[in-house]
Amino acid sequence: MMIREAVAQDWDAVWPFFHQIVAAGETYTYPRDLDEERARSMWMLQPPSRTVVAVDEASGAVLGTAKMNPNHMGGASHIASASFMVDPAHAGRGVGRALGEYVLGWARAEGYRAMQFNAVVESNTRAVALWKSLGFEIVGTLPEGYLHPTLGYVGLHIMYQRLQADRP
Amino acid sequence: MMIREAVAQDWDAVWPFFHQIVAAGETYTYPRDLDEERARSMWMLQPPSRTVVAVDEASGAVLGTAKMNPNHMGGASHIASASFMVDPAHAGRGVGRALGEYVLGWARAEGYRAMQFNAVVESNTRAVALWKSLGFEIVGTLPEGYLHPTLGYVGLHIMYQRLQADRP
Repeated sequence: MMIREAVAQDWDAVWPFFHQIVAAGETYTYPRDLDEERARSMWMLQPPSRTVVAVDEASGAVLGTAKMNPNHMGGASHIASASFMVDPAHAGRGVGRALGEYVLGWARAEGYRAMQFNAVVESNTRAVALWKSLGFEIVGTLPEGYLHPTLGYVGLHIMYQRLQADRP
Repeated sequence: MMIREAVAQDWDAVWPFFHQIVAAGETYTYPRDLDEERARSMWMLQPPSRTVVAVDEASGAVLGTAKMNPNHMGGASHIASASFMVDPAHAGRGVGRALGEYVLGWARAEGYRAMQFNAVVESNTRAVALWKSLGFEIVGTLPEGYLHPTLGYVGLHIMYQRLQADRP
């Protein structure tokens, strides 16, 4: 697997699984009927934010994608954030972990002092466990913060990790 | 004191104290050098979001302002947020409390199930105490989340309150 900068042509490979994940409404705070143009503008970011894809080196298939960006401005502009989508057809082979490690490396290299995830659905236990294994902590949970289509209201975690910046 | 919908002409009264508060860099996650046009577009919101001003009924002076808006989309779209600016020249006469009560009423009337403040600076103890007195809890604190100009890195609170909706 290789992680590289997303280019405009990658969107056609991203949208089918992006749409599948958002339409399921179980893990993301996007409208389930999010249309493709709006999705593209929300996901394919411009500098200083970035969007990458994880690609199978043999087939060239896009396995997943991540975007990374500042999470606050002003006095909190040292906190980054990131979002992830992994094609369910390629789950279980470490794509999410590789993307997570990548964005943490990006944030450190850019001099961010922390990374915050604003809305991790409590019932998305695989994601919660993955982020914990990468050093994130749940700093707070919004009770009944997310309406899951089958589980009803579940908590919405805010996860956070301080980073050792590469730069002094 | 009266709270009413902000109109375009109110901005000229808002900007001087808005600018003073943001330039001080002690309480808001806005860039300290935020320019007036960007500030106006970030503060003077369109429906379904709203912006109001608190006005002295005798003199007509603008004492403070609040904006209120959805905080998330999709499965978390039942969570509102709000932001407040009170003219320091009119501090201590309950303007912040009145605006806080107003936005909670708005959120209930609109059917939101919760209100979340994403970034309350820990050292802004008056604000923290006010929001607690209005029913908010600190659900989490981002350690070293805010760089205060004189105190250095301080925590950044996420505050949250579930609401009893007016509508069934």
